[in-house]
Amino acid sequence: MDEPITRLSTHQCWDFLRRHELGRLAYHLADEVHIVPINYAVDHDPVTGRRSLLFRSAEGSKLLGVVMNADVAFEVDELEGEHATSVILRGRARRLEEDEAHRAENVPLRPWVATPKWNVVEIDVTEISGRGFDLSRPWRHLIIDES
Amino acid sequence: MDEPITRLSTHQCWDFLRRHELGRLAYHLADEVHIVPINYAVDHDPVTGRRSLLFRSAEGSKLLGVVMNADVAFEVDELEGEHATSVILRGRARRLEEDEAHRAENVPLRPWVATPKWNVVEIDVTEISGRGFDLSRPWRHLIIDES
Repeated sequence: MDEPITRLSTHQCWDFLRRHELGRLAYHLADEVHIVPINYAVDHDPVTGRRSLLFRSAEGSKLLGVVMNADVAFEVDELEGEHATSVILRGRARRLEEDEAHRAENVPLRPWVATPKWNVVEIDVTEISGRGFDLSRPWRHLIIDES
Repeated sequence: MDEPITRLSTHQCWDFLRRHELGRLAYHLADEVHIVPINYAVDHDPVTGRRSLLFRSAEGSKLLGVVMNADVAFEVDELEGEHATSVILRGRARRLEEDEAHRAENVPLRPWVATPKWNVVEIDVTEISGRGFDLSRPWRHLIIDES
């Protein structure tokens, strides 16, 4: 059987993340799991070489559940014809302090929707992996028939 | 200030789910949150009117963490030009018993990637909401410059 899945290198994963801007964050809120689409940017410290993700969160958002439980997962994907790519990471989220929030000014990160006040949250990435899939979608005509 | 967010009705949310096939599932694995892209289908019981989501999971997949903790969240989105739509739901996942798994044959649900053995998992939806966003993305040129 042909192997329809390819693994991305860590370098390829970060390159994929850098070329995209919309992902989905999974986080804890009390004992529930929640998910939300967010736009993000990759921050890169030229001195240490450390890379992390930054995003903005509206003041008072339940997204600040990450302050209570920092454990998060994040996913970015792309579907092009018969090929899909997905990068998944896990990490620790924390709200940046005021004297660090300026880091969000140096990356291509803006709120998608205008809202008065934002916090900047960083994800310190502890695991990252990416996969490419060659898809077989024999049922696709069913979906087209339905719409 | 113009309100850049519109709310979808429950009917619109289900219609959106029915017209798509790729979403991201957030689930618990021990005390961690995990996320994975999955293809899914909407199942609809014509007698009761009840709707749920079905997906397949490879035997032995860590996705079967849902057997240990049924609490899950699921997200489907679409980005078209300057407009994004996202539907988020929360619910309870369970693996279908052998005598129910045939339900996956009646919906446009096939594994994207050929793998020998599958379980069928159902998400019983307890909360569903959808939002449309009119985007302002002033930093988009920055991303294009980088690639």
